[in-house]
Amino acid sequence: MPYITLEEHLPGITGLLEYRKDSAQPIRELTQLLLRGPSTLTEAERELIATVVSHNNECRFCTTAHTAAADLLLGENSTTEKTKQNIESAPISRKMKALLTIAKQVQQGGKNVTTESVQRAKEAGATEIEIHDTVLIAALFCLYNRYVDGLATLEPENPEYYKGLADRIVTNGYRRLPQGYDHLKKK
Amino acid sequence: MPYITLEEHLPGITGLLEYRKDSAQPIRELTQLLLRGPSTLTEAERELIATVVSHNNECRFCTTAHTAAADLLLGENSTTEKTKQNIESAPISRKMKALLTIAKQVQQGGKNVTTESVQRAKEAGATEIEIHDTVLIAALFCLYNRYVDGLATLEPENPEYYKGLADRIVTNGYRRLPQGYDHLKKK
Repeated sequence: MPYITLEEHLPGITGLLEYRKDSAQPIRELTQLLLRGPSTLTEAERELIATVVSHNNECRFCTTAHTAAADLLLGENSTTEKTKQNIESAPISRKMKALLTIAKQVQQGGKNVTTESVQRAKEAGATEIEIHDTVLIAALFCLYNRYVDGLATLEPENPEYYKGLADRIVTNGYRRLPQGYDHLKKK
Repeated sequence: MPYITLEEHLPGITGLLEYRKDSAQPIRELTQLLLRGPSTLTEAERELIATVVSHNNECRFCTTAHTAAADLLLGENSTTEKTKQNIESAPISRKMKALLTIAKQVQQGGKNVTTESVQRAKEAGATEIEIHDTVLIAALFCLYNRYVDGLATLEPENPEYYKGLADRIVTNGYRRLPQGYDHLKKK
């Protein structure tokens, strides 16, 4: 049961974003920009960073939701599973292996990122802005995971819930649609 | 040396907020809202949450900056030192001891927050929104600390630098003043 009074039908982050809408607004904006804004990393690659960090923080709600979003963007569900198990043997690019290694180091703590891991990313073709964004996305999900679990929000058991949520964040992004624009929401 | 190319005269978070101004905007807004917006927690109490989390994440830049900001707001510098050393024996309210305990648990990981620590905060008079804000401020500083250290930003040695920074964030807050409004900045 959550530690504060949240709407019962809104599990995980969704209830928190409704609980305090003014702080939700910049959180949504930052997420939209980093995960859906212009980038040389694909949306699936950015969702994969969110997935790996949430997985390592053992945040079940976020891991399941962003795994489902990455799966939908990739059109298959084996890459996310293999990447969560082992970045090095996963069917992803050398650049993504290097960036996800940095993301995992950030998850453990900022000082854990090494000159070697950054050098490896640069040698694999990562640009400075890609390295910057990887660190900031990883840091943002360290915020999300702590927000969601720190207040003991509900974790739906039903995989269909996460598929529905993934469908919404892939179709509509992370911004809140203004009232009256509900017809733009898929379903 | 930072892992990406930042302006040399801008250490810690300051260079990162200039590096990518579009992502800086919602980060600044969220911080302004949580640390300076309407709240039943004082600004000093909220800076103390930022200080304790940054201290436990061993982020020297953020710890020194927010210690200096809290010191300035409190008008003395022994409370921050004593709180960093030991929350329970520090000269702060029972409510703040309970909230800072929750903040430290969030720093370690969202799942570390316990029913007991939340119950203790409620018994000491903390409201649900204060508990919510404590968790979110702690989570936000887990983002900041990872962003600042994950990209190996510079840490000035000179205490005067942090006093100047504290003076700015106490006087002007966390929003970026629009160009042309420099005369509003203290000094």
